Amino acid sequence: MGRRLAGSAGDRAAGPWGKALLESLGFVNVRLEPVPVKVWERVAESGKVVAPYPQPLALAALGGSVGTPKEGLEAEVVEVESLEALEVLVKASPDACRGKIVFFNRKMDRDGGMNGYGAVVPIRGRGASRAAAAGAVGVLIRSVGTDSNRLPHTGAMGYEAGVPKVPAAAVSIPDADLLSRLIARGKPVRVRFTLDCGDRPDAVSANVVGEVRGRERPDEVVVVSGHLDSWDLGTGAIDDGAGCGIAIEAARLIGASPRRPRRTVRVVLFANEENGLAGGRTYASAHEVELPRHAAAFEADSGAGASTGCSWNAGPDAAAVVAEIARLLEPLKATLVRNGGAGGADVSPLLKFGVPLFGLVQDSSAYFDFHHTANDTLDKVDRKTLDQATAAMAALVYAVADLPEALPLIPEAQRTRRRE
Amino acid sequence: MGRRLAGSAGDRAAGPWGKALLESLGFVNVRLEPVPVKVWERVAESGKVVAPYPQPLALAALGGSVGTPKEGLEAEVVEVESLEALEVLVKASPDACRGKIVFFNRKMDRDGGMNGYGAVVPIRGRGASRAAAAGAVGVLIRSVGTDSNRLPHTGAMGYEAGVPKVPAAAVSIPDADLLSRLIARGKPVRVRFTLDCGDRPDAVSANVVGEVRGRERPDEVVVVSGHLDSWDLGTGAIDDGAGCGIAIEAARLIGASPRRPRRTVRVVLFANEENGLAGGRTYASAHEVELPRHAAAFEADSGAGASTGCSWNAGPDAAAVVAEIARLLEPLKATLVRNGGAGGADVSPLLKFGVPLFGLVQDSSAYFDFHHTANDTLDKVDRKTLDQATAAMAALVYAVADLPEALPLIPEAQRTRRRE
Repeated sequence: MGRRLAGSAGDRAAGPWGKALLESLGFVNVRLEPVPVKVWERVAESGKVVAPYPQPLALAALGGSVGTPKEGLEAEVVEVESLEALEVLVKASPDACRGKIVFFNRKMDRDGGMNGYGAVVPIRGRGASRAAAAGAVGVLIRSVGTDSNRLPHTGAMGYEAGVPKVPAAAVSIPDADLLSRLIARGKPVRVRFTLDCGDRPDAVSANVVGEVRGRERPDEVVVVSGHLDSWDLGTGAIDDGAGCGIAIEAARLIGASPRRPRRTVRVVLFANEENGLAGGRTYASAHEVELPRHAAAFEADSGAGASTGCSWNAGPDAAAVVAEIARLLEPLKATLVRNGGAGGADVSPLLKFGVPLFGLVQDSSAYFDFHHTANDTLDKVDRKTLDQATAAMAALVYAVADLPEALPLIPEAQRTRRRE
Repeated sequence: MGRRLAGSAGDRAAGPWGKALLESLGFVNVRLEPVPVKVWERVAESGKVVAPYPQPLALAALGGSVGTPKEGLEAEVVEVESLEALEVLVKASPDACRGKIVFFNRKMDRDGGMNGYGAVVPIRGRGASRAAAAGAVGVLIRSVGTDSNRLPHTGAMGYEAGVPKVPAAAVSIPDADLLSRLIARGKPVRVRFTLDCGDRPDAVSANVVGEVRGRERPDEVVVVSGHLDSWDLGTGAIDDGAGCGIAIEAARLIGASPRRPRRTVRVVLFANEENGLAGGRTYASAHEVELPRHAAAFEADSGAGASTGCSWNAGPDAAAVVAEIARLLEPLKATLVRNGGAGGADVSPLLKFGVPLFGLVQDSSAYFDFHHTANDTLDKVDRKTLDQATAAMAALVYAVADLPEALPLIPEAQRTRRRE
């Protein structure tokens, strides 16, 4: 059903599709669990450099942005590298951004993987309000990505209370370089952009759930998950069609194995990861009574690259057991074992309940070339690396679900959410 | 001035800019030579799969296409691989394409370089009329390119007399794969697309000319050239900003050398290569009297990749001299010497006059990832390989311009234009 942003036609179609798929694969207790979602919609967008010479800009509204007036928004552009640089600029020159478009031009480090992403993404989330507080009328950010294609990377942003809401869009990385070169010439650079987008009435989406019942303790659950929603520029093949595929197929393999694990393996395809996390939050609250019987939760949400290992978060006594389990991945050359984190965005609401959390770590060196762009399409999925990642997930989930003794919970002191 | 399609604002600005640049670099006899051009303009375009499920298509009108009705054109899609396959289909089933959109889905071979391009490009040029002759109402082609980005490749097409003119667009390569996958499911696939584009009143563009006068026979001329116009989706940095840069800098280096060559080196930045070749044709006709004193013509129009050698076309007696000249490129590891061809599109009208023609052969393995797309921007130009190609061009042009005896003309029998 193509793109699947929460509340869209694709999202509405995806739930029933997922349910039918899980049923056809032999899962039991297959169901849709309703998830109330906020809805934001992109209709159209365009932009161009007006001065020093006309040049179209490849840009995309950030998810959550207000629209511009119909005729667009035109202003001079002020470039800053970061939220911190904006603060320094405004302190030195309080009117520097007044009436202007602030252009955040921070490069993402390809070698940093998820950390490189995490270092830049606060600009996307908070840049609009920080700039508006300084008097800006609009915000452009350099796309958070590692490619050099004229395809902008969207992503979620939010507005702070008490600050005017200004339109915010991401320009593609070559367009960011162009803007920066023009600004460096020293003459005023003016941009006009038009965003037709905005909030829509709330809707109800769904988490898709299905199970392989455990052979000994079927009421104890290991969640293996991905998210079914996607951004709206591509089709969400790597983010997170791939992760859903990994979770479903890992659970199917476990269900088809000669001896099922002790505990129930529950596939969850979460709703609304991209712009709200309502699926993950709703799962945690709807299943709160059952969470003490959640032995662990896994998520795959890093694309279709080969697994290099896993991350884990549980009581410190779990280290030896986890190390032993992780050795199962040695034939796959996925030997990384990283302690910490929240497994993945959708399972992170389980952190405060102490549920042991696992993330599948994958090679994400190309992931941010495509992430949140129109380029996130099926041709970017490599069957071989997807299979390898699926094998890794299946081994980890089986082993944890089959442990004679459950892993110790995450200690109280470590149950605070950190942004990953 | 950004994109520079013939007759556009960018094209109008490019001529004076080029003239000022050549003057500032010390060229003499700098002038704009008027070139009457046909004008075609792209205003807006969009497309989507309508059935089996909605999905936006990344597409671009082919240059020369008529527009669709305002509300777009919607029809079922029929896939064929090639012009030949269309003929076979229509012979077997005369109504197979009637009222439908014909989708040509021929893959370009990356390893084939310019030949890979040449093998597919007739579909772009002639597909619309061939499909219309079979009753089609519109045409989509798989982009002629080697990338996997959701950025369509435009390019020139033409209509045959006596056949209805139907709108023609290129879909990006991932979109072509998507269409093909959907069609393979066996249920009707419907597409709607809207092209707002078309012919505009004729205009006058310009070839930009400047010279380094020869020390002995200044009336004899060696042309070194690129083309100043570009397609309108990107900024024409590799096609053919890079070629213009190579030609200008090679000639500048020759002008700055301690001893100038015997003959005049004339830089020509041609107009309207992309959709008309009016610049090349006008040069040939305007300079016809002078062509017997054209010792050779060079063109660089293969991007910014490293030179791997040269192509040449002259009288067969030239082989030994050309081989000796080509050895100058050995330190640059550009050792390929290919006989034949027409040097480049813009100098190809000189073929019928027998003017010896040279092309700079370059590594074009990435060229067709970007060619004629929005991705043809400055960040795709590698300074190091551009410098190497410029050095190769400078050496070749100097050597030919300094030959004691002019190269023999192309024999009459070989003066017929072949498509390259």
